[in-house]
Parts: sequence; C-alpha cells; structure tokens
Amino acid sequence: MTIVANAPRVQHSTIDPAPVREIRVAVLGLGQVGGAIAALAARARGTLPASFEVASALVRDPRKPRAIDAAALPLTTDPRTALASKPDVLVEVLGGIEPARTLVLEALNAGIPVVTANKTLLAYCGAELFSAAAAAGVPLLYEASVLAGVPFLGTLGRRPLARSVTGFRAILNGTSNFVLTRMARDGAGFAEALTSAQRAGFAEPDPSKDIEGDDAVEKLCVLLRHLAGFDIHPSQIDKTGIAGVDGRDQQHASAFGGTVRPVAAADWSGETVTAYVGPVYVEGTNALSRVDGVQNAIALTTLWSGELFFSGPGAGPTVTAATVLDDVVEASQNGEATSIEHEPASPRAANPRLRHRSRQTPPVTSVNDGAWFVRLTSSSLGEADAPSLLASLGVRIRRASCIDARSGRHSQWLLTHPCGRAHLDAALDVLSAKTGCSAWRIPALE
Amino acid sequence: MTIVANAPRVQHSTIDPAPVREIRVAVLGLGQVGGAIAALAARARGTLPASFEVASALVRDPRKPRAIDAAALPLTTDPRTALASKPDVLVEVLGGIEPARTLVLEALNAGIPVVTANKTLLAYCGAELFSAAAAAGVPLLYEASVLAGVPFLGTLGRRPLARSVTGFRAILNGTSNFVLTRMARDGAGFAEALTSAQRAGFAEPDPSKDIEGDDAVEKLCVLLRHLAGFDIHPSQIDKTGIAGVDGRDQQHASAFGGTVRPVAAADWSGETVTAYVGPVYVEGTNALSRVDGVQNAIALTTLWSGELFFSGPGAGPTVTAATVLDDVVEASQNGEATSIEHEPASPRAANPRLRHRSRQTPPVTSVNDGAWFVRLTSSSLGEADAPSLLASLGVRIRRASCIDARSGRHSQWLLTHPCGRAHLDAALDVLSAKTGCSAWRIPALE
Repeated sequence: MTIVANAPRVQHSTIDPAPVREIRVAVLGLGQVGGAIAALAARARGTLPASFEVASALVRDPRKPRAIDAAALPLTTDPRTALASKPDVLVEVLGGIEPARTLVLEALNAGIPVVTANKTLLAYCGAELFSAAAAAGVPLLYEASVLAGVPFLGTLGRRPLARSVTGFRAILNGTSNFVLTRMARDGAGFAEALTSAQRAGFAEPDPSKDIEGDDAVEKLCVLLRHLAGFDIHPSQIDKTGIAGVDGRDQQHASAFGGTVRPVAAADWSGETVTAYVGPVYVEGTNALSRVDGVQNAIALTTLWSGELFFSGPGAGPTVTAATVLDDVVEASQNGEATSIEHEPASPRAANPRLRHRSRQTPPVTSVNDGAWFVRLTSSSLGEADAPSLLASLGVRIRRASCIDARSGRHSQWLLTHPCGRAHLDAALDVLSAKTGCSAWRIPALE
Repeated sequence: MTIVANAPRVQHSTIDPAPVREIRVAVLGLGQVGGAIAALAARARGTLPASFEVASALVRDPRKPRAIDAAALPLTTDPRTALASKPDVLVEVLGGIEPARTLVLEALNAGIPVVTANKTLLAYCGAELFSAAAAAGVPLLYEASVLAGVPFLGTLGRRPLARSVTGFRAILNGTSNFVLTRMARDGAGFAEALTSAQRAGFAEPDPSKDIEGDDAVEKLCVLLRHLAGFDIHPSQIDKTGIAGVDGRDQQHASAFGGTVRPVAAADWSGETVTAYVGPVYVEGTNALSRVDGVQNAIALTTLWSGELFFSGPGAGPTVTAATVLDDVVEASQNGEATSIEHEPASPRAANPRLRHRSRQTPPVTSVNDGAWFVRLTSSSLGEADAPSLLASLGVRIRRASCIDARSGRHSQWLLTHPCGRAHLDAALDVLSAKTGCSAWRIPALE
C-alpha cells in the first residue's frame, strides 16, 4: 500500500536560473518589528529569489540594547541619512502618525517605493499618502497593516473581480480575541484573561488601544479604503470595547451554541455604509467562532466569487517581518504597474451594484438590524418574566437562559430573532422602567 | 448611538483616472465554464478597470444549443482561427489533455499569454508547459485550477516568504465534500448522498473522477509543483475513494467529536514527500471539519507566516469564470514579470530547511504515521474485546464506541493515539486472525 517513487524537482533546463535580486532597504524604526525584519533578512539570505541588504536603519538611540545584533547594521538617528542611502525600498515600521507621515511623503515624492505596516498612519492619512504615491507613480504597499501574516490585500488589489466586495466580517485584533477566547475556554473573568494575555506577551502594558477597539477601527478604515474606495475617518466608526464582556456572558453564549468574539464588520451593499467594531455573539456554525487566540480572520462577501475566508496570524514580529519583506520584493519588482494595481479601489472599480447611484457620499451608520444577544440584570428578575414582556413588545426571543442568581443579583441572557436596533432599545427601555433591570446587548451573527 | 457621517469616495484629483484597458481574449471551449466566461465578460463591462472582448471562441459544434447567447460571439471550429485572432490572452477551458496541450503549447510558442483552469493538463503535462512558458517568457496562469474561487496561488507565487511552505492539508474536491457532509448531517448512506449531489448539480452523471479521488490527486500535484517545485506524476500519489465510508462511520466520528472529510494532504518538511488523498477523520477543533458542502479549503504550514488558511467556493461556472478573468487581467498586465513570479517554485526558492540536502529526488510515500480512525466488523465482536487486544499489541486506543449490533453484524469504531501505519496494520492482522473481524482504517487529523 505504501507508494515510494522518485519525485524529480522541477528543472527548467532550457533556461538559466533567474539571478538573485539584491534589494537595498532603508528601515525606519528598529523596535520589535524592525528588528525582526533585519534578523529575517539575514536569515533568509541564500534561500530566496531575492536578497535583502539593510542600507540604513533609523533609530532614536543607537546605544539602546536590542534583541538583534545591531552592530552590523548602518544605524542612524537622522531621517535624511536614511533617505540619502538610496534604498530601492523604504520600510516604515515606526508606528503612529509623526514622524512616519512626513518621512513616507518625502520618500514617495523622491520616487522611492514605500512598504508600511502602520495601520494608524493609513487610517488617518491614507488619502494624502495614496495621492502622493499616485502622483509620483511609486508603489505604497501595506499588506502587513491588516491580518499581518495573511497575504490578501495585494491579491484583491490586482484582481478586480475578486475585489468586487460588498462587505466583510472579521476578527482584526489578536489581543482582544485572545482575551475573549480565554474567557470562553476557561471561564476566566475579563481582568484575569487580560493579565494572562499580558503575561503571554499578547497584550501591551497599556492595552487600551486593543481592548477598546481603536486598533480594529483603524484596520477597518484601511479595508474600507482598499476594498471600496471610501475615505472614512476612524471617529466615524461605532465602536464598543470588550471590557464589558464577562465570563458568564461567555458561559451563556456557549450554552446557546455560540461564543462572543471581537468582530469588525462592514457592509456597503445597500444605500449606506454600515460599520461596527466590538463584541459580537457568533453562532458556532460561523467560521469566525473557530478563530481562537491571537489568530485573525476575514470573511469577504464578493459579487462573483462567493464568500472568501482568509485566516492566519494577525501579529507577531517574525510574521509581520515576513509579510513586510514580501511586500519589499513586490515593491522593488515592477514599479509603476504595482503601484496602480495596489492602489485602493477607485469609485469606478467599486461594487457594480452601486453604479446606478450618483457619486454622493454614502452615510456611515452602525449595525441597525439583525439578531441580538442580551444580558438583563436586576435584584429581582425572576418575578418579571422578561422574555414574555419583550415578546409582548414585538421582540421575538429565540433562546433564553434560566435565571442565574449568583452573588445576589439575578441575570438572564437572551438571543433574539432579527429585530431593528431602535425597536429593541425602546423595548429594553420599557422593560427597565417596569422591572428596574439593566440591559446590555451586542449584535449576534449567524 | 447611531453615527451618521459623510464618507467621501477616494478621489485622486491630481491625476486622471487610469484608462479602461481593453483585453482581447480567445476562449478554447464554450462549455459551462467557457460560457460563463463569455457571459461574465459581458456583464462586467463598464464596472471594472479592464474590459474583455471575446476575439474568438473555439467550439466543436457551432449549432449546439447553449445557455448563453452565442450568436454575438465569433465562434470557430478551427483552432488555427482562434490563435490567428491575435488575442492578448488565450483562455483554455477545454479540460483534459488533448487537444488542450497542443493548443496551449502553440500559443505559448507564439508568445501569447495563457490562462487555464485545467488541472488535468497541469498535473500530467506541467513540466513541459512551464518549460515552454519560461522559454518564451510568457505568462501561464492557473489560479482557477485549485480552489477555483479562492485566489492564493498567484499570491504565493510572487511572495517568496509566504511561499516557504512545508506542507498542507486541504479539501480540494467539492463533490466528495458535499457527499460526506450530507452523510454527516442527515445520516444518509453513500449512495443516497451521491444521488442528492447529482440532483443538486454538484456531481456529474459519471462522478467517478471526483468520488475516487482522481480530481483531488491532480490538484495536489499542481500544488506540489507550485509550492515546492516537485514534478510528481498523479500515479505516485496514494489515493482512497470515499465510497467505502458509510453513514454509521459519520455517526461515530461525530460521537468522537469529529467528522470524516475528503482530505488531500502533503508534507515535505522531512526527508521524503508524504502525500495522501482520501477520507480522513478530522477533529472538530480543526478548521477543515467546518468546511461544509461544496466549499474547498487549504491550510498551509509556512516557515515564517504560521498557518495560513484559505477557503471559499471550489467550483461552479461563474466562480471559475471570475477567477479566470482575473487571471486574464494579470496575464495581460506585465508580461514577463508576471511570468517569472507565477512560475512554480524552483529548487532554490523552496523550503530553506531543505537547503542542506543534495538535489536528490525525494521519494514519495503515503501517510505512515499519526492517529487512525478504525472500524471493526464481525459477526461476534462483543466476545473479543478488540480495544484490549489492540492495546496489548501496542496500539493505544484514545476512544472506543460501544458495539453497534444493527443488521446482525457487530461493528465497533476506535480512535487511536499516534501509531505507525505498519504497526497498526500488523496489529489489525493479528486481531482479524484471532477474531475473524474485518478492519477498515483511515488517517485521523487533529
């Protein structure tokens, strides 16, 4: 039954092997990701069809101890020196807006292709940067800015039919997904799960940008520009942090067959753009419910290619470095062609269903419809029969938990059938007025 | 709480919009996929940055009734006319080896870029075709040949770090996945599930190529060449059809927490290439266990980017047509550069872990190790205590079902701990000799 046979490697004996390309890279920032880029560039030497030489590395303090051997690297504290090193590609991994913005603009204006992993910069200054790149005819690539380890942005950028996307549902932040996964698996509370994420190196000492949703909002804005051509400011996105989720929410979500996950969702198939970042109850049959720990994932609704699902590591120095270096290879390859292909979608390239519309700017709203996962809490919920009361107010209940009476408080969890948010909120207000209970609700996804 | 704001579309006001490219395409074959290509090319007009004109369509019988309006198309029965129409790109969707092979070679030799969805052609004649494409410096793209709706081959082709892959586990055949999913969900038997697949249009009148694994073997060979540069003939791959799976196997797999799926797996991280196509018990925690119906998926083990998971529609005329047309856009774009990037991996580009080895051709073996899902059947299994007997022979049992005594036969299902295949088979031989039971076993995947 065992088949053993010879498997010759492919040999194109009629042609010479392509020469190894030498690519000179200037790296702005030698923190965790920048250091990993330098280390991986050295480790990968001789094994790839491209070879990377760090021509210059911009740091704030050359004497700072680093995980990598920086002695061999041409460190500089002067941005002008980095640009003057005549790199084939400039890599920006400083993070934040300034000085990244100024340096990236200078590089683009000087005709130097740029690769960045900086979603903050793209979310806040994308319009300016892509205009500069287009005007200069120079690539600006950013595959590592969203789902850092998973190549899909460039793919969609160059494939117009696959890019005919009308919405997505994604897990874009590994820290908050790790925290919610740990709460679901081990019954941990939020604080305990966050501490364990910090101990495992999956959450920063100040984790607020991840936990409160800002990181995911920035990535969502990068996606909205890339896929639909929308120039939406992060402040326009409705976001909810995950600190309001507790261990019992996860227990009852599990009893309903689902789990609570940090979801970033957007849809532009209708007359408005709906977008939301925050905790969502996800049914166990949805692939996002199986994306655990620091994994990231995105499910794209396309016009011609069905639902496309991509998942993999969303962060990590080596993973991000690999994606950045692959972008460096692409950026160094075919200058102008790459630039045009990777540019964010233009109105003409967007969803054909929108073509009948004028170029009016669509309004951005939050999730206004769909099913909801609700937690009710009061000192005496048992006497109220909240499900019946809500049903009498037109909110149909799909599942209801028993009343949980731990710690002297009564709590009950409900899963509704699809229902407008305004309708639900009005019904919950009536319920609160009648029974004194407080209500917390998040969207539910099939 | 509802945020409504204006979202201006991105406008690069400083530059003129890129002109719409007109791409002339010759289509070989106007069956389901070829017809969908012509239809989608017409429907997408005006909505994409590229516009497709069918310059020639090769058919066997111009008078055959077709789902699309073929009157507007320049039909021909003469391959020479198709090539002489001076297309920017030739699309081959004839299927099978001849005349596809001869016509693709003629186009490449004439300097015409080729896009094909034909995995049979690539699996059996890949070495010859890629040599011809490389010699002519012309792109030969084939994104639709594996996971037809999911773009990932071209992505990995141009990104050397993401392509540092050492193995994959995939569901590559939608028909057999539909059949096994239906058996798992509804308790249907194999024949009943196959009939329902045929009724739903997901299985051909003669489904043998899908059910017996040949389709998945061909796709696996395309992947081995693309990712690792191995030139492996389909006959070298160990394959098992899914007709041996029955409804009770799925019931007991489900009781163990998993499901049986049609898996194509390969691994070249060690000294040999292991490859297998056939039914596999997949644990419920593995993402492949959630890939239902006609969906396809692949999980790639990479050196630098962790595990990458891509899933989406694996077949279907419109889905395949969209992928083919996206390949047409790419092939028409930047001739030579695209060709080199999309070429299958060369030995130098392959797994860095292999670099210490000589260029000896690695042998191909089947799955020889790991856990196993076993079904035992006899007329009197109850008296034997098979799990204890196997344990005494060194096969450690992780889970065992109760004895199922329906229809006068005794059956029992086991899930083993990791165990060499030769060891397991020897132990099952001893068990059969002692008890008269027959054994059926498939690999199990965590």
